[in-house]
Amino acid sequence: MERTLDWDHGVVVTVDQSLLPQRHRRLRLGSVDELIDAITRLAIRGAPALGAAGALGVALSAHTHRHGGRCDEAAVRRDAERLTAARPTAVNLAWGVRRALTRLADGPDAVLDEARLVLSEDETANLAAAQRAAALIRRLCPDRPLRLLTHCHTGRLATVAHGTALGAIRELAGAGRVLEVLAGETRPLLQGARLTSWELAEAGIAYRLCVDSAGPAAIVSGAVDCVVVGADRVAANGDTANKIGTLSVALAARHAGIPLVVVAPRSTIDPAAAHGGDIPVEERDPHEVTHFAGRPVAPPGARVFNPAFDVTPASLITAVVTEDGVFPGHAESGVGQP
Amino acid sequence: MERTLDWDHGVVVTVDQSLLPQRHRRLRLGSVDELIDAITRLAIRGAPALGAAGALGVALSAHTHRHGGRCDEAAVRRDAERLTAARPTAVNLAWGVRRALTRLADGPDAVLDEARLVLSEDETANLAAAQRAAALIRRLCPDRPLRLLTHCHTGRLATVAHGTALGAIRELAGAGRVLEVLAGETRPLLQGARLTSWELAEAGIAYRLCVDSAGPAAIVSGAVDCVVVGADRVAANGDTANKIGTLSVALAARHAGIPLVVVAPRSTIDPAAAHGGDIPVEERDPHEVTHFAGRPVAPPGARVFNPAFDVTPASLITAVVTEDGVFPGHAESGVGQP
Repeated sequence: MERTLDWDHGVVVTVDQSLLPQRHRRLRLGSVDELIDAITRLAIRGAPALGAAGALGVALSAHTHRHGGRCDEAAVRRDAERLTAARPTAVNLAWGVRRALTRLADGPDAVLDEARLVLSEDETANLAAAQRAAALIRRLCPDRPLRLLTHCHTGRLATVAHGTALGAIRELAGAGRVLEVLAGETRPLLQGARLTSWELAEAGIAYRLCVDSAGPAAIVSGAVDCVVVGADRVAANGDTANKIGTLSVALAARHAGIPLVVVAPRSTIDPAAAHGGDIPVEERDPHEVTHFAGRPVAPPGARVFNPAFDVTPASLITAVVTEDGVFPGHAESGVGQP
Repeated sequence: MERTLDWDHGVVVTVDQSLLPQRHRRLRLGSVDELIDAITRLAIRGAPALGAAGALGVALSAHTHRHGGRCDEAAVRRDAERLTAARPTAVNLAWGVRRALTRLADGPDAVLDEARLVLSEDETANLAAAQRAAALIRRLCPDRPLRLLTHCHTGRLATVAHGTALGAIRELAGAGRVLEVLAGETRPLLQGARLTSWELAEAGIAYRLCVDSAGPAAIVSGAVDCVVVGADRVAANGDTANKIGTLSVALAARHAGIPLVVVAPRSTIDPAAAHGGDIPVEERDPHEVTHFAGRPVAPPGARVFNPAFDVTPASLITAVVTEDGVFPGHAESGVGQP
């Protein structure tokens, strides 16, 4: 399938995500400066996509500073620092930059090979996890077209290709198994409304968008067969941190007795966190809640509770599916916990 | 306390709710046309407040069309029809108009007496329900300053005075029993962000605003002692329809083992509905979800699931409290279900 980012004869090609869902505009970025600008203004976003952008950015620099089979290493390292600084808190961006730099001494072609490897690894891992999750969901919910619910954005635009939970939905739809997807809008930043809706429409998958609190109501009323979400971090015991709102659909899924499947790359599993309590919950800018499109929606001086994610206990999760298998494994049999 | 609407020497006085939370502007409405304009542009909203506005509007007309101790009944009835048509789906508005018209034959002073009765009945009922609920919550959660969570807007601005769930919070705060209120913003129309926040600030009660899906996360993490909400309709078995999002906090409250108290006037109880399944769930305009402040946030043509409310089963509700008592009564002992 089409990659969100790719290398095309010395140019990084991507789509300007800052214009979605209203406009689909392809970008051709021929310089590190253009790539940094795209990262800064969120034309490129999503953790795995930023990793790919970092690696491609170093390849772009290595080709710009090519001298025969070698490159001006000092110049490339300066560009690499500027790339990393484009979004200083994005760990994947820095990781992608470092991955490509490992081949710097071997010249620009080797750097490009490494960047291409970063891209294909992400693509392969997502596809494997998505296919594995789709197969699990078919076993959990056999013999009927499915009404799925997802939360936040886990699609191809956040990755190099396929996506994770949305990748699994795509696989199920390809097999004719999806009746409809219910997508939470995902306040405060509306990734569900802006990006998940757009990808579902692009893929020709029937969907409806809802405010986040309508998802649990739909589940409890019997209008959903299975919940499929991604993960920001998975603790060793299976407790899963994901976008705020995941826990509320998990509670509803348990109440209704339907499965909840988490789809995420292996790299999301953090053995250093024994359980959910070990995962710190970052609070984000109050402005995300008090303002909308620059316009205030709350009284001046309103205090805000704005956690970036919540932690769903493993007891509410049917399975965590990665490219390698089902974690912690209790649902591989096809039955799951509920 | 200050009434949201009142009669002051031939004029209806109120606050322009369409300007909140950014601006607090009092309105003095001296004619039926001005009152209709205020209702139409949502300067006056909230079911009980609209009932009061309807009754006051008829009183205004009766005083305008006064001839000695009588009034021009035909003229008043024409105004009454125009008032009712200002928001044709608002049943309370029509009810308030009809209440005041019952005294039309007795002259303008009798009409005004009836309108004043509508106001004082609402004020008295809300205060009684709020005090009863506050007493129950003190028994359910003794010996500590409380962290309360509420959803949507149930405050004085929606009623003549006090409010229902927010009235109970006000009573508890008055007794020094509130540490903090967590208020859900209440997508799609943001009544929590715009109105509940403003009333809490006005009352000097510490609060934080959150996106709706952060409420369940706060509850499960142990950051909330009790949930207090209002109701749109209560079935005979205690199943309760309330603003979309109530069910998701109810599920979290049950998971965390904290009480959920519903505060509503007796008129909310519908004996014709045996259980929640008998309450039809209205779907509202998709535009409320796809647009924000006139700006599109979803792809063109996005389909939407936009239920106005959800139904919380009685099994998840500790008590429904009205001006008359605790319904269905199992929590009057002070223990409740959880």
